[in-house]
Amino acid sequence: MGTIKLTLEYDGTAYAGWQRQLNQPTIQAKIEEAIVKIAQQKIPVVAAGRTDAGVHALGQVVSFQSNKSLPISKWPLAMNNYLPDDITVLSCEQVPDDFHARYSAKEKIYEYRICMRTSRPAIDRHRVWHFPYDLDTQAIQQAMAAFSGSHDFTSFRGSRSDTANPVCTLSHIALHIEFPYLTIRMQANRFLKQMVRAIVGTLTEVGQHKRAPETMQNILEAQDRRAAGKTAPPQGLYLVQVLY
Amino acid sequence: MGTIKLTLEYDGTAYAGWQRQLNQPTIQAKIEEAIVKIAQQKIPVVAAGRTDAGVHALGQVVSFQSNKSLPISKWPLAMNNYLPDDITVLSCEQVPDDFHARYSAKEKIYEYRICMRTSRPAIDRHRVWHFPYDLDTQAIQQAMAAFSGSHDFTSFRGSRSDTANPVCTLSHIALHIEFPYLTIRMQANRFLKQMVRAIVGTLTEVGQHKRAPETMQNILEAQDRRAAGKTAPPQGLYLVQVLY
Repeated sequence: MGTIKLTLEYDGTAYAGWQRQLNQPTIQAKIEEAIVKIAQQKIPVVAAGRTDAGVHALGQVVSFQSNKSLPISKWPLAMNNYLPDDITVLSCEQVPDDFHARYSAKEKIYEYRICMRTSRPAIDRHRVWHFPYDLDTQAIQQAMAAFSGSHDFTSFRGSRSDTANPVCTLSHIALHIEFPYLTIRMQANRFLKQMVRAIVGTLTEVGQHKRAPETMQNILEAQDRRAAGKTAPPQGLYLVQVLY
Repeated sequence: MGTIKLTLEYDGTAYAGWQRQLNQPTIQAKIEEAIVKIAQQKIPVVAAGRTDAGVHALGQVVSFQSNKSLPISKWPLAMNNYLPDDITVLSCEQVPDDFHARYSAKEKIYEYRICMRTSRPAIDRHRVWHFPYDLDTQAIQQAMAAFSGSHDFTSFRGSRSDTANPVCTLSHIALHIEFPYLTIRMQANRFLKQMVRAIVGTLTEVGQHKRAPETMQNILEAQDRRAAGKTAPPQGLYLVQVLY
């Protein structure tokens, strides 16, 4: 069969993230377990983005090698038959053998959703960051501009980040407002661990007038995580799309 | 204190519906338990719409009498402190003593959400009706027109409906399309038990060309539940707003 590319949607609430861990429910483990049932062999899979615990995906991409002779059109329904109801395969494609979900990716798009209202959300309780204070969206938009382009994002990198190179190129960052929801969308060639959440946490401090929009440049230049603001919680984050 | 009007949002997934039942989790029981903790007395509450098991609310309205001297502005946070995370009070108002959440309501708005795509939804698995086939939305829109205005809705009434009068006046019915989501919104002076779900179930049969759009008038005139189509499942239904 060769190389298969799966596109996945998942609700990350019940999982310790993408990456397989001992004695923890992970998305990777569920995907690999479903593949074992179809292919009758253990096949390791690779994901475009290793989402953290509680983070969701609307379009995660996974690749793996399979020798199973099942026609590619049968894979989505076969996989969904074995996956739990909070993970779903949206599509399967046969791709060239040099395709790698992570290394072949040109860009990724993440979205972060904030629910800005007094009452905590009930229906969206695991899918947004509840923010009970008013945020100055103009100040946030002004601050966001500093992140466009290529920068050293060390100041917005989680402490256990495992990549040496801290430079990322953001081709797009935008705030979409549909009250009470604020959505911050970012597109970049790569993202460091917890980078979106650190940027969003810092932007909310701008929105609360705890930081001036003009200070974002200084934070980037500091190359020090302590220069930036808090890390936004995981449940508002979505891996939206991976571009190849 | 007099009469209090609460506006609620809830995720109905974990509940046997609004109405209190022995040994079953219900929204009414959770609301009354929270009020007991604040008011130190058992106070019965009345809801505008007695939603079924699995049905959600974005703007359910509840009324009750209270002698508690807590300022009305303190009620939402106090209630939310005692409510589970899938129920939230959006607002509280002091209203005239003749206000009754159900009898004072002039109209209610319900929405029904369908997710029309091949793969089952993961993130929205408890919040939409998954429809893996294409629906003819033009045929649905054509069929919907028959429901506008005053009609005897006996053909769209659940078997255990407890009201004698089957006549309802729909002031608005519309289909909103944002692929893969189809949302059918209805506004009426009153709704019979499972009426929205029976209408939506029948409309999907029109969308699948199992029924002609022109037959809706005949179904209404039959005044027989067996003349209409299936009942759509509860998880796609939302009580959106109550108008007074």
